[in-house]
Parts: sequence; C-alpha cells; structure tokens
Amino acid sequence: MPNVIDADTIFKELKTNSISEFFRKNSQMLGYSGKVRSLTTVVHEYVTNSLDACEEANILPDIAVEVKQLAESKYSVSVSDNGPGIPSKIMGRVLATVLSGTKFHRYVQQRGQQGIGGSGCTLFSLITTGKAIHIKSGTGKAAYECDLSIDIKSNKPLITNMVDIDKSFKGLVIYGEFGEVKYESSDHGVYEYLRRTALSNPHATIRLIDPEGKAYNFIRSVVELPTKPKPSKPHPLGISTNDLLEFAHSSDSRKVSSFLVDTFSRLSQNKVEELRALVKELDFDKDPKKMTWEEAEKLVNSFKQVKWISPDLDSLSTIGEAQINATIKNILNPQFMSITERRPKVFRGGIPFVVESGIAYGGNAGKSTENGTQGVLIRFANKVPLLFDGSVCAITSAVNDIQWKRYGIKEFDQEPISVLVNVSSVYVPYSGVGKQAISQEAEIIEEIKLAVMDCARGLQRYMHGQKNRSIQASKYNTIMRYVSQLSENLSEITGVKKDEIEANLKALIDSRYKKLLAAEAEAEAKMDEKAEAEEEEDVGDAPADEDE
Amino acid sequence: MPNVIDADTIFKELKTNSISEFFRKNSQMLGYSGKVRSLTTVVHEYVTNSLDACEEANILPDIAVEVKQLAESKYSVSVSDNGPGIPSKIMGRVLATVLSGTKFHRYVQQRGQQGIGGSGCTLFSLITTGKAIHIKSGTGKAAYECDLSIDIKSNKPLITNMVDIDKSFKGLVIYGEFGEVKYESSDHGVYEYLRRTALSNPHATIRLIDPEGKAYNFIRSVVELPTKPKPSKPHPLGISTNDLLEFAHSSDSRKVSSFLVDTFSRLSQNKVEELRALVKELDFDKDPKKMTWEEAEKLVNSFKQVKWISPDLDSLSTIGEAQINATIKNILNPQFMSITERRPKVFRGGIPFVVESGIAYGGNAGKSTENGTQGVLIRFANKVPLLFDGSVCAITSAVNDIQWKRYGIKEFDQEPISVLVNVSSVYVPYSGVGKQAISQEAEIIEEIKLAVMDCARGLQRYMHGQKNRSIQASKYNTIMRYVSQLSENLSEITGVKKDEIEANLKALIDSRYKKLLAAEAEAEAKMDEKAEAEEEEDVGDAPADEDE
Repeated sequence: MPNVIDADTIFKELKTNSISEFFRKNSQMLGYSGKVRSLTTVVHEYVTNSLDACEEANILPDIAVEVKQLAESKYSVSVSDNGPGIPSKIMGRVLATVLSGTKFHRYVQQRGQQGIGGSGCTLFSLITTGKAIHIKSGTGKAAYECDLSIDIKSNKPLITNMVDIDKSFKGLVIYGEFGEVKYESSDHGVYEYLRRTALSNPHATIRLIDPEGKAYNFIRSVVELPTKPKPSKPHPLGISTNDLLEFAHSSDSRKVSSFLVDTFSRLSQNKVEELRALVKELDFDKDPKKMTWEEAEKLVNSFKQVKWISPDLDSLSTIGEAQINATIKNILNPQFMSITERRPKVFRGGIPFVVESGIAYGGNAGKSTENGTQGVLIRFANKVPLLFDGSVCAITSAVNDIQWKRYGIKEFDQEPISVLVNVSSVYVPYSGVGKQAISQEAEIIEEIKLAVMDCARGLQRYMHGQKNRSIQASKYNTIMRYVSQLSENLSEITGVKKDEIEANLKALIDSRYKKLLAAEAEAEAKMDEKAEAEEEEDVGDAPADEDE
Repeated sequence: MPNVIDADTIFKELKTNSISEFFRKNSQMLGYSGKVRSLTTVVHEYVTNSLDACEEANILPDIAVEVKQLAESKYSVSVSDNGPGIPSKIMGRVLATVLSGTKFHRYVQQRGQQGIGGSGCTLFSLITTGKAIHIKSGTGKAAYECDLSIDIKSNKPLITNMVDIDKSFKGLVIYGEFGEVKYESSDHGVYEYLRRTALSNPHATIRLIDPEGKAYNFIRSVVELPTKPKPSKPHPLGISTNDLLEFAHSSDSRKVSSFLVDTFSRLSQNKVEELRALVKELDFDKDPKKMTWEEAEKLVNSFKQVKWISPDLDSLSTIGEAQINATIKNILNPQFMSITERRPKVFRGGIPFVVESGIAYGGNAGKSTENGTQGVLIRFANKVPLLFDGSVCAITSAVNDIQWKRYGIKEFDQEPISVLVNVSSVYVPYSGVGKQAISQEAEIIEEIKLAVMDCARGLQRYMHGQKNRSIQASKYNTIMRYVSQLSENLSEITGVKKDEIEANLKALIDSRYKKLLAAEAEAEAKMDEKAEAEEEEDVGDAPADEDE
C-alpha cells in the first residue's frame, strides 16, 4: 500500500479559472460542437444580435451575411446590419467579455439573454484560427473600425488597430474567421437557418451570399416593426424564495409592503393586506433589505394561497397571425395554409408564454428528398429557429403526439407539409445552453398540441374538401356529358327545342350541385366543432386561465 | 413607425455578471434539473470529491451518505469520508468558488475536473434553502468546523462560525440542506447511484442511510487501491493549434526544440529533426513564447505527417478485470458473468481511451418490474455512474446496435441481464456539462461494441451450453432410466449378474456422454472464432493502433 499523502500536498496546485477559460474548454456548451453546427452558431449569434439591436432601436432590419471558404474547415463570416451600432467605449465588453451584456437582468422577452453570444464567437475565432474579429461600427455620432480579441486568462477585451472613420457610416459590420467549421446546405446549415429566421421575422430583409458566390434574398413581407415587448414586472406565482430575497435585498423601498407593490405585477395594496393576514410573523413595515430567508419563504408560500389575476402579457412578443400569413405565402407559397395564435398561458404557476402555429401544404412546403416528399417541422423559440436537438424538444414531442391520420394526413413524413411552431416567453426553459430545444414541460407541450391541432383542423377541411370536390366534380362532369344526348332525345319525344331543354337541365344540375356543396360544408363544420371539443379533452387539463 | 433610439441609450445598462450568477440562472447546466436528478447530483458531486481525494491520498475510501427528509421537496444530505480533509485556508476556494480547483489544468484522468462540483452544491443549497453548508474537516495537523456559503455577486466564499476542534478528527464531513429535490428509489435515484458507484469502485466501502432510516452497506470487495493514473504529457496528435500555442506561451524552455521535447509525449530529439525538415519556415531555436499562430498551425499540421508511437497509456485508470469480477459477484451475484478489458485505443487521432465491459446473467442481474424481468445497461465514464441522458450516450448507441439474438438473448429488455460498460480517458468527451452522456463519436462507439460483443460471446457459450446441457442431460436421464430394465433382461439371457451388466453399461454411457460434450465444446469454440472475425469486420474499420 503506498504512503498516505496529506491535504497540503494535494491542494497545493489550487487555481481559479476565468469564465473564458472555462468556455474555451467547454465550447460545446455554447453550441460549438460539430463543424456544421459551429458555423450555424456563429451566424445565429451575430444575426440574433443584429435583430435585437435593430428592434430596440426601432429600425426595420436589413441584414447581409456572407460566408467564404478560406481553407479546408476554415471559413470567414461577415454580418452587416443597419442597426444602431455599438459605441466604441463599450464594444469590448459587448463582444469580448463573456457574461457581459445589457440583457441579463431585465425581465423582457429577447432572443439573446445571457451575454455570451457575441463574445463566444470572438473566443471561438481565437481558439480555432488565432485571429481577431474585425469590427466596423457607426452610431450616427461617431464611427470606427478595429480588431477585437479576448484575453482568455482575464476575460478582458483586446482592442487593436482602432481608427475613426467617416461618421456617415451607420450600423455594424462584423467580420471573423473560424476554423473547425463547414458550410453545408443541409437542414442544419446557414442557408436553412437564415430562411427560417426570415420566416419568423417577416419585417426583416435578410440576404446571404454562400461560399459559391450564390446570392439569396429574403425580402421583408411586412413593413411594420413587431410590437416591442415591454419589460414587465414578475408575477408573484412565477418566483422562487431566492428570487424574492434577491429583489428584496436590492430594493430601494422603505417597507416590505411598498417593495411588494413596486416589484411584482398584480400585487396591489389590497393583496398586501391579504398577505399580511396570512403571514402574521412578518413585519410588513420593516426594511426589505432585512428580510430573512424564512420570511421570504413564508411570503412565497402565502402567494400560493391568494387568488391572482393572470400575469401581465404585454411582455410577450409574437410573430402575429397576419405576419405568419404573409411570410408563409412569401417563402413557402403553399396551396393551402392555416394559422393559429393561442391565447397566452402560464407555466410553473406564473411564467407567461404563448404558442403560435402554422401549417402549410403543397407549394414549397415540406421537403423533397430522394425518397419523395417529406413533412418538415420548423421550430422557433422567441422567433429564433431551433435547428438542433429536435429529439429532446417540447415542440417535437407535441407534434409527434398528434394523430395525423385524423386530419387526412397519412404519414407526417410523407407529405408536402411544413408545420411551424413558435413559443414565446420572457423565460423560455431551454433544455441546454445551446438553446436549441425547449424542455419538455407538460403545460408547454399541451399548448403546442392544441395550437397545431387547431391548424390541422383547417388542413383537414381542406383535404376533405379537396377529396369531395374531386368526387363531386367527377359526378358533375359525368352527368354533364350525358346532358347533350339526353336533351336531344327529349327534344325528339317532346318537340321542345334541344337548346332550351339543355339550358334548363344544366341550370337545374348546377343549382342542385351548389346546394349539395353547401350542405356538405355545413356538415363538415359541425364535425369540426365536435372534433375540437374531443381534442381539448384528449390533451388533458389545460392550465386554468383565471381571466378567461 | 416609432422613433429611432440610439446606441448610447440601448447600451446604457451594460453589466458584467459573475460566473456564480450565471450558474444560478442556469443551474440545469450543472445537473440541477428535476427534483430526483438534483438530489442525485448533490450526492454525486460529494461522493466523487471524496473518492478522488481518498485516492490521491492513497487511502481506501470509507464513505457514508445519509439523506433525510426535512419537508416536502426539502432534504438534508450528509457525506462523510476518511480522506485527507481540506486545509481551512483553502476550503472556501475549493467548495465555494465556482471554477476553482486543483484539477483543471492537469492532464490526468480524474472523476471531477471542472472545479464546479462542490461549489455548485453550495450554490444550489443557497438558492433553494438560503442555507449555508456545514463543514467538518481534519487533515491530521488541524481540524475545524464551519459554515460555508457563497457570495453570488462576487463568486467569493462566505465562511462563518469557524471553530477549531480536536485534531484527532480526520477526514471530511459535509452537511447541506437542499430544496427542489426528491428522494426516489428509481433507476435515477441516490440508492442506485451509490450501488453503481460501488460496482465501479470495488476498493471503496460505501454506506447509505435513506430517508426512512434504512441502512445499505456496499462493502469493498478488494483491498487494493486502483493504480493511480499518472499525469501524462499530451500526445502531439491530440492537440489543437490553440493548445500548442498556449503551451508554448507559458513554457519555460529556451528554445522551441526543447519546448517540444519537454511538453509532448513521444516527441524525441529525433522527431524534432523530422519536424524541422517539414517546417522550414520555423526557427526551432527561437523562444517558444514568441511562436505565432501561423507557426503553431504549421507545426500541428506537420505532426500529422510524422509517424508516432501511440499515446502513453499510463494516464488511464481502469476498474480492472479482476476487480469487475469481484464486484459483480459481490453485488449482482449472477449465475454467469463475462468480462472484457479492451486494449487502449485513441480517438480524434491522439486522445487515449479504454473500454471495459461486463455482462452478468441471472441472480440479481437485470431488473424485476411489473412486466417481468428486464435487461439493464449500467454506464460509467471514468468509473462514475451515468444515470441520465442515456438516449444520447455513445454507450447506449453501441449496445442498441448489437444483434442480441446472435448471442442467445431473445430481447435485451426481457432477460435477467446487466451490461456494464466503463469508458476511461483523460478527456472523456461528454455531450453536456451535466456529464451524464458520452458524445457519440464513431471511434468510441466501435470500441464499446467490440467490448460488449466480446462479453456477449461468453454469454452465448453459456446460453448455448445451458441449452445443450439440458438436452444432453435429458437424453442421458432417459437412457439411464432404461439401463436397469435392460440389464435385468440381458442378465436373464446371458446369465451374467445384473449389477455387473448395469455397472458396465453405465460406465460406457458416461464415457460416451463426456466425449460428446467435449466434441461440442470444440465445435462451439470454432464457431466463436469465426463469429469474432466476422464481427470485427461488421463494425467497420477500427482505429488503427500503431503499436499492435
């Protein structure tokens, strides 16, 4: 048995690492795993930042992406936008300091939220090519160009070659070189990412020049900015003891009572009185900074005993029914489409979310493969396309759960059908930092199912109608074919002119045919209502919505 | 259209966050998602630290875990060990500073490596119960108790109630309280985690007292410490340009040539000369601190053109065939078992790894459920049980790929069978930070398949033998039943005594029967060899092993 070694020896090499160092060694956590995915991640991060910045600045986004191959597994990516630019003094913190950003602490729905995306790209460029990122930015007041890298040991920006340029330049251009990446025109590649981003952002124009020099333009189909999500106060039912305590300890309110009213939505003075009656141990006049864990825990428990108005839903920004309509027409140009926006719901008691769904059939919907046409599921979270990790995503679960045969679809994966689902929330529960899948929470899956089934009913009507119309049309045509012969025979027997008889007969058949179609449409509508009622039962208890 | 907002306004709220704050908001990245998993994660982190510390100190681990329920979804966990303890002056950095640790920068195979585990538990206790962790530690020279928490904003430890205690106390006791957790006796729970940890650590004694007060003891089945993995130098084929440059810039060597020899395994002076001939642009006498990215990139490319001896394999620590044998007997007590340790291989060109596998059949192998017996796959990475995310793990893929019918197993999930696989490497490529699944790299999957198929052949022999033995035994018994009658008849005809005839006949039958069994065994062995050859082909090109 070897000698025992003591603790001082074992712990002598103790070191603390920077977050940059951590992500350098765990870059798969940021989406940098696999060559195709890594390139898509770079484009995703820059385009997401551009869209967010344009929308914050109230500018209709014009974004141009260019990808060039430099060598085997080595590409350059350039992303330019017409956004507000980044002031030079903070550019290093925004794009080369991991965990730095404007968005981390705000309770507002946005695409990026972690303060990692842009800095992650800078880091990834550095560790795969040793290169700095090149920036060109103009805010209207000033403009500059520079090179930007990151000091991994300290997680601090390294800015070089800073030059002022003519301040007429407005917007942001980022150019970077990346190794261990690959451009591929698959479902996981840059083209598909941008096509789907265009689908969910009909107000944006997005252009791509691919490594072969081919240009693709997704031109905006609406010219209005989406409604800006409002930063909202959290709902009492959506927070933990730890959250409450953190809010309390950083509060400027003098008393617990005013702190509660100021901090939470739906928490009125009347509610404070209700809570006061429930939590007798807590002095509601004390300084919130002095609140203890036990007191906060009791408050959070008491929240569950009070009846609340549902969360404020202004914090949610959807694509919108009209916008989805325009964008699907624009990009998929289908024979048929059906769109649903559900009312907002809450999950985990207090976090609002909303599901939108669209189904497109025919045209460019679905996907052509060697084995024929396939159905395609297009997933979004807060309008950002999710291209990876589909197998663990709530959207995939929900869509797989649906019995497509009910809706006239034989096999989902054998039809020219595209199903689009967007889940919007201030807090989307991703199943990993890669943010490519929504975690499979029952309340979210149910809402997605209801949304997609609602669209599917529209499709069912269409498919059923198609089938009936084709049967009716064939009957109609058959009858019409005999009308001429019949009229001639009747004319001989009766002496009435053939043309007269033929006109009368045709009018009679047309009118009967129209009545028949109308009756069938009515019967279908009734069936629909019944099916809808049954399906709502099928998915179990949807979360109760108090203000319904 | 709303007014355009400028960049200064948009970026005015810029903030940088601590890594603790980041993980507070993304605790699922550390394994804290779902109540059962969260509790298992806590136990896993503490037990892993205890095992690593005991082994580093050359102590046979004695670890006791106690879980108590405090309230709905609230439990306490206490883990005590007989390890080296933690010196008081660094305890805060080890257990309450995220990304701090001894292990991060060493090239050695260990269970924990990120400097996150223990601090993650402290953070999780704080955010779910507001409580500090209680520590009791003795190093032999000194002993103390204290409470320990973490200042999330600064990622710094908060130590309170520090008292010296009698220095006769040796080892470490950690007590913590955790919310949003649940004890469950499922495959994902603490009991199963510890049972599997005992399976892969036969030198450790592990005890558990569950929330109902029931005690379980997994007593060590071997009294030798596993061979300590040696910190090894990286192999030239396993590193990236960025790695090489980082090594070069922190090197104390005077010249690039000596830096290369000092830093990498298998890189002799002769190899330096080979490289010198390949990379003419690089001055091998220059200071490695001044190496540029381009030079490093050329060096890394030249590495691929040189023939290397395979990586040093002393860095790998396996469970060991004899140890797996002892521990499976001890814990599963099966009717049959078969164990394989493959030779070490490399993946991604230069990272060594080794696969061990065991199959147990009958006894406590498999799992009894309402629907009968089921096969069980027991996954390990560096001897740590992997209980979650099985669906995305290389081990699961490999085992699902195997055609079990070939080996006399009807359906893997309908037999009393346990398959154990351990993958050991200095660098296990996990598919996430949760470290519950090995990423599905082709070279690793192939090795796992070969290991499990090798065990499966052992099982096949046994199953086949069982079947044959039962057929032969029934024939033998049938014949023997007639021997007595036959002997009596022959005795009447020949006048020879019945006993004599019966003894002769029995001896004759026995000897024929033995020969028959031997011939069948030989035929089976030949079949085996053939099957083995075929299977090696089946899995495609296994990575070439240069020193074979």
